[in-house]
Amino acid sequence: MKIAILTFEGFNELDSFIALGILNRMRSKGWSAEITSSSPHITSMNGVKIQAQQPLEFANNADVILFGSGIKTREIADDSKLLSSLHLDPSRQLIGAQCSGTLLMAKKGLIGTLPACTDLTTKPWVQEAGINVIDAPFYAKDNLATAGGCMSSQYLAAWVITKLAGEEEAKEVIYYVAPVGQKEDYVERIMSVVKPFL
Amino acid sequence: MKIAILTFEGFNELDSFIALGILNRMRSKGWSAEITSSSPHITSMNGVKIQAQQPLEFANNADVILFGSGIKTREIADDSKLLSSLHLDPSRQLIGAQCSGTLLMAKKGLIGTLPACTDLTTKPWVQEAGINVIDAPFYAKDNLATAGGCMSSQYLAAWVITKLAGEEEAKEVIYYVAPVGQKEDYVERIMSVVKPFL
Repeated sequence: MKIAILTFEGFNELDSFIALGILNRMRSKGWSAEITSSSPHITSMNGVKIQAQQPLEFANNADVILFGSGIKTREIADDSKLLSSLHLDPSRQLIGAQCSGTLLMAKKGLIGTLPACTDLTTKPWVQEAGINVIDAPFYAKDNLATAGGCMSSQYLAAWVITKLAGEEEAKEVIYYVAPVGQKEDYVERIMSVVKPFL
Repeated sequence: MKIAILTFEGFNELDSFIALGILNRMRSKGWSAEITSSSPHITSMNGVKIQAQQPLEFANNADVILFGSGIKTREIADDSKLLSSLHLDPSRQLIGAQCSGTLLMAKKGLIGTLPACTDLTTKPWVQEAGINVIDAPFYAKDNLATAGGCMSSQYLAAWVITKLAGEEEAKEVIYYVAPVGQKEDYVERIMSVVKPFL
């Protein structure tokens, strides 16, 4: 599985890296989640400079695309040139968004009339884009999902694994990353959020 | 507060970036958590190339030092030149470790006879270093703390904020990063792990 973690200037480290770290636990099964961006170098909201692993166009042929979040998402949402280079298709790709990433998914017309999740700061902008924002950490239908609140990136990752490799694989990965001594409860809690949408 | 997130070649993104992302929510109060490393460029265990924000020596005068984790920690633990450039002092600094970072903290003689947490993979190596590894996500005493399992980095971050800014500040930060619609429970759960050690 090729997974594009869409990550832009001013990105939130929690949103991009939690998904990336969890999804790459499937590496031995041939999965690869990579930081995908419109520029070769990106600086996070807290000043960490990173190198993109894939150009934006990688997303067009990826199996999974996750829109990360950041402090400059509103500018990116207005960058029609950038957004128009993304040709995504929910009939053949899983597409998800985290926090302000939901705004980009909305701008790409990928949310339509579905309810959507985002963080509390981004909420008014997503609503302004005509989306019904719900007070929930996670929502998914078919191949589309949104998550709200940085730590909800765990749900997005668990959803992707469950959709593409099954519940047992997802449980195994979450078990690995879960806190020691709390692993069973942790897995149970994460899966209980994701499973109603499968 | 100056916070050094010690991050080495082959680092685990979850361990370094969850702590960094959460602790930098205190930026408006003058806090700054930065990727601190022995080399200017570091590549994560999943191939993400990042730039260090501070050299290793930054840790010697930081208020907080968190040892991150990674797939090359055993090599780093044997690098006496690297480790000897760290001059840490728990009487004036908060010092914590995440997963295999516990091995480095042990090698620096910072754990002594305290119980310690680490991940299941690193456990035998930490035990080999003479440390009593416990089946728990988090343990702290005075200015020293260890956490086990990637997602326990949330506990380490909450502990640092509680120690240096108080419980209310920690709750506020965790509330921000917590999943939407689950925020109260999430804060309660994280704080219930950390508070017995304060």
